[in-house]
Amino acid sequence: MPEPWSNEQFMAQLRKVGESRYHDKHPYHVRMHEGKLSPEQVRGWVANRFYYQKNIPVKDALILSKLPSREDRRDWIQRIIDHDGRGDDEGGIEAWVRLGEAVGIPREEMLDERHVLPAVRFAVDAYVNFCRLRPWPEAVASSLTELFAPTLVSSRIGVFEKLYPWIRPEGLEYFRARLQQAPRDADQGVGLVMRECKTRKEQEAAVAALSFKCDVLWALLDALSLAYPDEENRA
Amino acid sequence: MPEPWSNEQFMAQLRKVGESRYHDKHPYHVRMHEGKLSPEQVRGWVANRFYYQKNIPVKDALILSKLPSREDRRDWIQRIIDHDGRGDDEGGIEAWVRLGEAVGIPREEMLDERHVLPAVRFAVDAYVNFCRLRPWPEAVASSLTELFAPTLVSSRIGVFEKLYPWIRPEGLEYFRARLQQAPRDADQGVGLVMRECKTRKEQEAAVAALSFKCDVLWALLDALSLAYPDEENRA
Repeated sequence: MPEPWSNEQFMAQLRKVGESRYHDKHPYHVRMHEGKLSPEQVRGWVANRFYYQKNIPVKDALILSKLPSREDRRDWIQRIIDHDGRGDDEGGIEAWVRLGEAVGIPREEMLDERHVLPAVRFAVDAYVNFCRLRPWPEAVASSLTELFAPTLVSSRIGVFEKLYPWIRPEGLEYFRARLQQAPRDADQGVGLVMRECKTRKEQEAAVAALSFKCDVLWALLDALSLAYPDEENRA
Repeated sequence: MPEPWSNEQFMAQLRKVGESRYHDKHPYHVRMHEGKLSPEQVRGWVANRFYYQKNIPVKDALILSKLPSREDRRDWIQRIIDHDGRGDDEGGIEAWVRLGEAVGIPREEMLDERHVLPAVRFAVDAYVNFCRLRPWPEAVASSLTELFAPTLVSSRIGVFEKLYPWIRPEGLEYFRARLQQAPRDADQGVGLVMRECKTRKEQEAAVAALSFKCDVLWALLDALSLAYPDEENRA
């Protein structure tokens, strides 16, 4: 086995995954950020991405159950609270339901999963099972798409405001909250992965986990591309 | 299959399990509450029970990952916070480490598990795996020993204060906190079990789950009885 990477080399390998495979490069996502999606295509994205959103606390509870110490759990639990809410804070899942309402999807249609495509379900379930079944450092590494999320989410707020003026602005609260949460989560995740993945084999497994997670997000957009084709590509 | 029990009949069946099989009836526990355990026997109990305590947030995170809604998770997560702590609250696991110190077990000896008996490990791991692998209503039902805990814990505080004056009183904070937490947890657990277990088969599975959990706690004390025998029974 080759020598372990230095922390800097390891981070560079992780960032390279994002540069080549993060879902901002998917044609459906590129078109979204160019303002070219139809309302129906935006609604498809919001309703299907909700199946991913609602499974975040599930995969985070599975990771929580595997973390080796009370201290690690005390940090990680914040992710579940961010999505489920606590006390007066309604949390990210409710905020995403409101995004649905802001783009014209009734709450009931979000909650009953009628718009969720089978391939989206398979991809998200694969992600949850990855977190359930793989060693926890790999599960944590798979969350490191958060390294690339803030830049994308930040531009998405502007895109939605300017290029999709028909989306009611109160629907964007989820993205605003993530601007604070994602960098903190990324720092914590990187800290755990750097601490735990000391051999080259473990480091490569972490990179593969992040690559797998990019595949999950990519598959979601592939499924949307087929189900909600551009006007010019319709039969 | 026979008719479902009414809620009252179902509760009576659950309570019957506690009346016949809860660990307050185990000889080791009876002797503890009679003030008859030696310091070594008390330390054995505290150090081994810690392996149970430290696994509570693990099994609760597994249950959290299986609960069907954000609302159910928002309630359940409090159990993890109670044990791991959050913010300034150090939580029940740290409080149990302090109980260990109060009975004369150095923190390091609690944390490195050197005193944990194999049979205690097997029993507690069986409990965690039950919560991992069984349907979530059964996992929740297995937590309903909390129905019987407050009475026992309340008397334990008095017992420790009066009959074991050598235990430093600051060690009893864990039990004081549980006086508030356990009744709330029991109410919540009963609510979920009553809501979810509607057929006689489901109700009987819940009763069996509670019985299994009593076996776990009983096995812990069996292991202690063998490892820390009474003076008169020593070879």
